[in-house]
Amino acid sequence: MKLKRNERIGALIKILSDHPNEIFTLSFFTNQFHAAKSTISEDIVVAKKLMEDLQLGKIETIAGAAGGVKYVPLVSRQNGKSFLEELSKKLSDPSRIIPGAFLYMADIIYNPSLVKKMGEIFATQFAGEGIDYVVTVETKGIPIAMMTAHALNVPLIILRRDSKVTEGSTVSINYVSGSTGKIQTMSVSKRAIKNGANVIIIDDFMKAGGTAKGMVDIINEFEGNVKGIGVMIATKEPKEKLVQDYVPLLVLDRVDPIQQEICIFPNERLI
Amino acid sequence: MKLKRNERIGALIKILSDHPNEIFTLSFFTNQFHAAKSTISEDIVVAKKLMEDLQLGKIETIAGAAGGVKYVPLVSRQNGKSFLEELSKKLSDPSRIIPGAFLYMADIIYNPSLVKKMGEIFATQFAGEGIDYVVTVETKGIPIAMMTAHALNVPLIILRRDSKVTEGSTVSINYVSGSTGKIQTMSVSKRAIKNGANVIIIDDFMKAGGTAKGMVDIINEFEGNVKGIGVMIATKEPKEKLVQDYVPLLVLDRVDPIQQEICIFPNERLI
Repeated sequence: MKLKRNERIGALIKILSDHPNEIFTLSFFTNQFHAAKSTISEDIVVAKKLMEDLQLGKIETIAGAAGGVKYVPLVSRQNGKSFLEELSKKLSDPSRIIPGAFLYMADIIYNPSLVKKMGEIFATQFAGEGIDYVVTVETKGIPIAMMTAHALNVPLIILRRDSKVTEGSTVSINYVSGSTGKIQTMSVSKRAIKNGANVIIIDDFMKAGGTAKGMVDIINEFEGNVKGIGVMIATKEPKEKLVQDYVPLLVLDRVDPIQQEICIFPNERLI
Repeated sequence: MKLKRNERIGALIKILSDHPNEIFTLSFFTNQFHAAKSTISEDIVVAKKLMEDLQLGKIETIAGAAGGVKYVPLVSRQNGKSFLEELSKKLSDPSRIIPGAFLYMADIIYNPSLVKKMGEIFATQFAGEGIDYVVTVETKGIPIAMMTAHALNVPLIILRRDSKVTEGSTVSINYVSGSTGKIQTMSVSKRAIKNGANVIIIDDFMKAGGTAKGMVDIINEFEGNVKGIGVMIATKEPKEKLVQDYVPLLVLDRVDPIQQEICIFPNERLI
């Protein structure tokens, strides 16, 4: 089908942004749109400028034999700031306090458009690190980790709390939960992770960091490199966590069931 | 910022397709693009035709006070067919057979672009049913269910295998696993699901249907209406499952560890 310029640009943006971080060759578009390479190149210039002007991410051109063009989702500082402030506000609602001074947040961590945005913020933070996998542990961090993996166009690895017969031979580790002091197990199929890979760890919540430390340990079993750790919420205390260099989106200062008060705010480094 | 027509169309498509099934008012776009309503209406006509011509989904106009325009992701029959055939081929690789005649599939059910497409196929199947929630049970179905929820723009509900203190008061049910005969538990926070909601159930695998039946039971506790059940893979045997009217993407005939053979094929109704 022969398309007009405005149609080609619309279709190009749709295809690229549906497949973040996937490289499409110029020939792919010349075939799809029955247009000359020079025409497609001009379309890409328009699309590129548009994405930058509207701060909707970046279209990158990759030179060389394996070259082409790809869409990189990036959340601008300004956009991230207003999102994280809105998120803090939502989470500050005292009706979220549940017995034990926990915070009800299933409606947030399972909300597709919110977790998609969180995933894009993490992807923005860890862009350019040559990430091979996003790693999380079941259950509550999975949606955020999945959307991060989608934005980076890499496989998600889900560590299980025990080993399942349906996963084949597994690698397991024991770790001590930093908050409860209990010994727990984490496992993953041996064939899930290639040796020496670059990974980021994504989870919903971090208190003492024991679970994140467990994930680091299991990645070490595969001689992997942990390029970053991202969590939706980290508690302010304890200040010393079992892992360093983690990136929280929000910091939880306290949940006070008596005063009916939740004190949570965006990570200052991100806004 | 004042945009040209081809830029407006590109931006319009980007914004709509990043937020499937979310209604944007005309005023949103007139403000964003500093253009007249009549201009935006013409842009929408172009974008609409383009999506249909390229079979990339549908742009719908909603009349009335709460009206506007939204993008509905739809997978065409032809596109779905080639995707499901490709998926069957991937899953037929005998190196996937693991002890116990199970099928290794973590690389598929945790692959963002594959699960996104599966989610869009389910969203296509259950479009127009007025779905309020997508429901799944931890763990392996979560990514597919999350992408289905994203395509439908509704919250995801994840049922847990046991009740957690961090979820507040919960509703639990016991159910009998159809394949193992074991009694298991499923629970969900009381505040997660509004009474009388329309839901679809999404999971990765169905053998006898006991888990799906358990999910139906827990939704009944909330007086909910199960509008559909979608699974990535259903086994051919037993033919009589504990639930009716489920939609599998693929049907697994057999896994033969001796002959090193896997027989799996797309659901004929979908191709």
